[in-house]
Amino acid sequence: MKGLLLVAHGSRRAESNDEVRQLAHQLEASAGEKFDLVASAFLELADPSIPDGLRAMIRAGVGEVTVLPYFLSAGRHVVTDIPGEVNIVRAESPEVEITLAPYLGASPEVVDILLGLASGQD
Amino acid sequence: MKGLLLVAHGSRRAESNDEVRQLAHQLEASAGEKFDLVASAFLELADPSIPDGLRAMIRAGVGEVTVLPYFLSAGRHVVTDIPGEVNIVRAESPEVEITLAPYLGASPEVVDILLGLASGQD
Repeated sequence: MKGLLLVAHGSRRAESNDEVRQLAHQLEASAGEKFDLVASAFLELADPSIPDGLRAMIRAGVGEVTVLPYFLSAGRHVVTDIPGEVNIVRAESPEVEITLAPYLGASPEVVDILLGLASGQD
Repeated sequence: MKGLLLVAHGSRRAESNDEVRQLAHQLEASAGEKFDLVASAFLELADPSIPDGLRAMIRAGVGEVTVLPYFLSAGRHVVTDIPGEVNIVRAESPEVEITLAPYLGASPEVVDILLGLASGQD
C-alpha cells in the first residue's frame, strides 16, 4: 500500500488546520491509483505530529509513504525540521520506504497559478 | 498601467525573502500583456512593506494594482492584516484602483500541483 502524508506547519487557528485536513481529503479523492491512503500531519501546534501521522499509516499497512511539505519556501522547517521528524520513523521502521517530495513553493507551476489568480481566471 | 504586487509574510531568513522577490521576477517575465509591472512586498520582517510597495507602483505610474497574497491559508494575515494595509493606500490615493486577488491556497489547482509533486511528475 502507498500512502501520502501532507505536512503543514500547524496553526493556533483551528480553521487553518482544518483547511489542511480538508485538502488531504481532496488529495485522496483525486489521487486515483497513485495513493491508497492520504492523511495530514503538522510540524507543530496541531495533531497529529509527523511521526504519529507516519506511524498511523504504517499501522494501516502502508509500506511506501511520500511526505509532501505544504510550505512555500525552503526555510528551516523544510530543510531541517521535517527531515528530522521523518528520520525518527525511518529509524523505528526501516522496512518502510519513506520519500520526501519537494515542497509546494518549489513547483514551477506556482507561477501559472498565481498569474491565473491575479487575472481572475481561477 | 497595470501592476501586480505579490505579498508574502516575510521571514527572518534573507533567502526566503529573496525567493519571493525572485518569484516576482518570474511572474513579470511570464505576465505578458496582463501586467506592466510586477513587484513584491512583505507583511512584516522584510522590505518593502505593503503600503510602500503600493506607493512605489503608484509613483511609477500604475493606475490599477492587483494585490496577490502568497499565503496558503485564510488566516488573520489574509483576512484582516493585508486588507488593512491595502486600505491605508486606498485612503491616500483614491484615484488608484486596488484589487485584492484570492490567496494562493484558495486555488483549486493546488490539488493537482501537490499530486504532481508527490508523484515525482513535477
